[in-house]
Amino acid sequence: MEGFLIVRLVIVGGVAAGTKAASRARRLDPEMEVTVYQEEPDPSISECGLPYFLSGVVREREDLIARTPEQFAEKDIEVLVRHRVERIDASSKKLSVRDLNTGDTFEDTYDRIVITTGARAVLPPIPGAELEGVFKLRFLTDSERVRSYVKEYSPKKATIVGGGYIGLEVAENLCQLGMEVSLIEGQDRVALAYGPEVSERVEAELDAHGVGVYTGEQVSEFTGEGHVQGLKFGGTELATDLVIVGVGIKPNVELAAEAGVDVGSTGAILVDRHMKTNVPDVWAAGDCVQTLNLVSDSPAWVPLGDTANQMGRVAGTNAATGEDTLEFPGTLGTGIFKVFDLGVGKTGLSEEEAAVAGFEVVSAGLSSRDRAAYYPGAGRVFLKLIADRATGRLLGAEAAGSSADKLIDICATALWGRLSYPDLVNIDLAYSPPYGPTLSPVIQAATILSGKFARAKEGVRASE
Amino acid sequence: MEGFLIVRLVIVGGVAAGTKAASRARRLDPEMEVTVYQEEPDPSISECGLPYFLSGVVREREDLIARTPEQFAEKDIEVLVRHRVERIDASSKKLSVRDLNTGDTFEDTYDRIVITTGARAVLPPIPGAELEGVFKLRFLTDSERVRSYVKEYSPKKATIVGGGYIGLEVAENLCQLGMEVSLIEGQDRVALAYGPEVSERVEAELDAHGVGVYTGEQVSEFTGEGHVQGLKFGGTELATDLVIVGVGIKPNVELAAEAGVDVGSTGAILVDRHMKTNVPDVWAAGDCVQTLNLVSDSPAWVPLGDTANQMGRVAGTNAATGEDTLEFPGTLGTGIFKVFDLGVGKTGLSEEEAAVAGFEVVSAGLSSRDRAAYYPGAGRVFLKLIADRATGRLLGAEAAGSSADKLIDICATALWGRLSYPDLVNIDLAYSPPYGPTLSPVIQAATILSGKFARAKEGVRASE
Repeated sequence: MEGFLIVRLVIVGGVAAGTKAASRARRLDPEMEVTVYQEEPDPSISECGLPYFLSGVVREREDLIARTPEQFAEKDIEVLVRHRVERIDASSKKLSVRDLNTGDTFEDTYDRIVITTGARAVLPPIPGAELEGVFKLRFLTDSERVRSYVKEYSPKKATIVGGGYIGLEVAENLCQLGMEVSLIEGQDRVALAYGPEVSERVEAELDAHGVGVYTGEQVSEFTGEGHVQGLKFGGTELATDLVIVGVGIKPNVELAAEAGVDVGSTGAILVDRHMKTNVPDVWAAGDCVQTLNLVSDSPAWVPLGDTANQMGRVAGTNAATGEDTLEFPGTLGTGIFKVFDLGVGKTGLSEEEAAVAGFEVVSAGLSSRDRAAYYPGAGRVFLKLIADRATGRLLGAEAAGSSADKLIDICATALWGRLSYPDLVNIDLAYSPPYGPTLSPVIQAATILSGKFARAKEGVRASE
Repeated sequence: MEGFLIVRLVIVGGVAAGTKAASRARRLDPEMEVTVYQEEPDPSISECGLPYFLSGVVREREDLIARTPEQFAEKDIEVLVRHRVERIDASSKKLSVRDLNTGDTFEDTYDRIVITTGARAVLPPIPGAELEGVFKLRFLTDSERVRSYVKEYSPKKATIVGGGYIGLEVAENLCQLGMEVSLIEGQDRVALAYGPEVSERVEAELDAHGVGVYTGEQVSEFTGEGHVQGLKFGGTELATDLVIVGVGIKPNVELAAEAGVDVGSTGAILVDRHMKTNVPDVWAAGDCVQTLNLVSDSPAWVPLGDTANQMGRVAGTNAATGEDTLEFPGTLGTGIFKVFDLGVGKTGLSEEEAAVAGFEVVSAGLSSRDRAAYYPGAGRVFLKLIADRATGRLLGAEAAGSSADKLIDICATALWGRLSYPDLVNIDLAYSPPYGPTLSPVIQAATILSGKFARAKEGVRASE
């Protein structure tokens, strides 16, 4: 067996990053032992689908499970669900694992380990948060609890606490169930990651679908006997039969930190471009790690499924080869969500985020049709481009409306290529009447930016 | 009036490039005289909408006219329709213009001139092409003739000659009118600008909608008494009540050439990046000019409405300032069309075009869902990425299916930024279940390319 050692790879966490890392490692090294520990009852859950599972738009729990433990076994990947890794001893390369079925603890060893412990929902310390009928929504099990509760109690009034994208997706899905839905947001507008023009459009969309929106309000108490019946904020008490709290998530870093893994300024695990931590033979990926925002060049924590998947590929590859084979360069913070008929997306920095990152910006927003004026069925879309006043470099984009997903992906690609606004004025995008106006809203917005920059320059010249 | 001269700008042609140039010049220089001569009865026609006007998807001719002469007059732009510029004398800066209403000719002068004479449909010299019921489709007047003919004769069988995008769009629109439609293409497949995988999908879509497709067939004769009743190809005679010929267009360069303007290797007018011709104070833009394909770095002639619009902006600006204020860098040859429920688009070079341009390529094609597997209503889309074997640079992309427009615009932006396939593996695009699979087909295809390049390298190493 000289020169031939079977490497044991352990992956802690079995959602997007973990299962991707496992599959990738298995593919690259058919000899390696690959074991995945997953605390929840299922691996490879599509967490982004959970809001749609509430309403039944996604019908079966199985639809959200990309691959079962049995299917992983066929690929020679051992997936142990309901197993919690409680301790990693990096010096001896040992793990302590609790089997949640039996409650027993056992020891395992690893040669290389990938930490993909994800993130957890934050529940604010509001009195009454422990009442039945108050839920968070992070795991498939959470969704199943909500579904059971809905089946048992047929709630008529639902309240969502938190106006971020998960709260907004949940609002749509609870409306689909015929509930009267309210949404409470502590800040003065929903969709805070976006500029106010987008927040306005989201609030109008909620309003158009009968969702009661309360902004600038902090829930002070959930009330009810046994199960939730109301909640208090400001001077108001709102009757409610169901509450879903979506006020934020935080990375699960405790296990890694106790093993000596450094945590970054965002509170997530520190990794290099190869997804390596500071501890030898320990990689990390997914919602638990910190990455780089490629626009602001500053640390970022962006817990999103697609990013987790890409990171998992890099971590799994490098853990399999034991080398710095692949790199994950960082993120643009690109994201999109749907709320009723409105697509809402962004990439790069909002104006507010750009200011925090030290940029002075010029921005241009416009509302455009999503196809030729004469082609029937046109929707409207709002697009804002944000550029660096000093260099003209594109810093971010936001869109709301039909074709928002397309416009954001164009802008994300432009950011990825570090393009500037003048590059977008003559960019050769695809035009045909059913697919857009003659000039894409991206080109239109870049042309407006072009005018603004020209006038700013003239202003400077005139004052010289 | 010392140092203050009113400049007279004449624009020859009033469709996309011409009217854009006029509007832009007017905006930049409120003093300038701006006159547009347009041979057809209307200016600023949306030519891309003509197929949809046949079927009534676009109902009124007015829907296709972005601005009437009266509306231009309000902006102090003189638009003279049914006026043909017959001669430009660049040495004396004089024009000879025929008023097609009266038949009279008159002389005009210019200080600066923009030539936007567009392109015309080529009618192949097939016996019987002069029969009533045989049409080309280039101008609004052509569409109106077809509509009148349809109204008068209620044709049941229609035949389209030419399987390019216009022929394919027309096929869909004639089917919408309830006609039995056949399409005849001289080459061995339709949509020749694309690879065979796309052609197959287009042919399947035509077939699914009952269009009879005959490839590799040359029409030898149109038959009929007075109006068309049939056509012959190979050994076959096909009965038909209506024929639309869409076998190609060519640039209108004769007027410019006679004025001493150079014509390029593509047969279109030669301009520099500022849309200037070789003749002083003569600019040109739109379907009549040659530009640069930015991928192959070779001359290109790409007669498309959006490109014409962008060129018109540059030509109009520079003609207004009399300086090289703006640049039009060139084209990627990006295009898209819809045929029934299939979106078909491309950007950059097809494999065949890449080979002609001297590239050795690696390509990756895949068929993907256009949203998360569990999200209802998913369509499918085919995507092919084409990369330079030597450098990994992305050279082109083709897509067919739902969301083809989005994927092509992502790839066009990547080409515009001169990205390579490894850049696309970790690109941060927008994901949410209603808008795409977890990893965009662009990322999936780039990942496949990545594997192919890696194996090619290993193959080289193994053989070393």
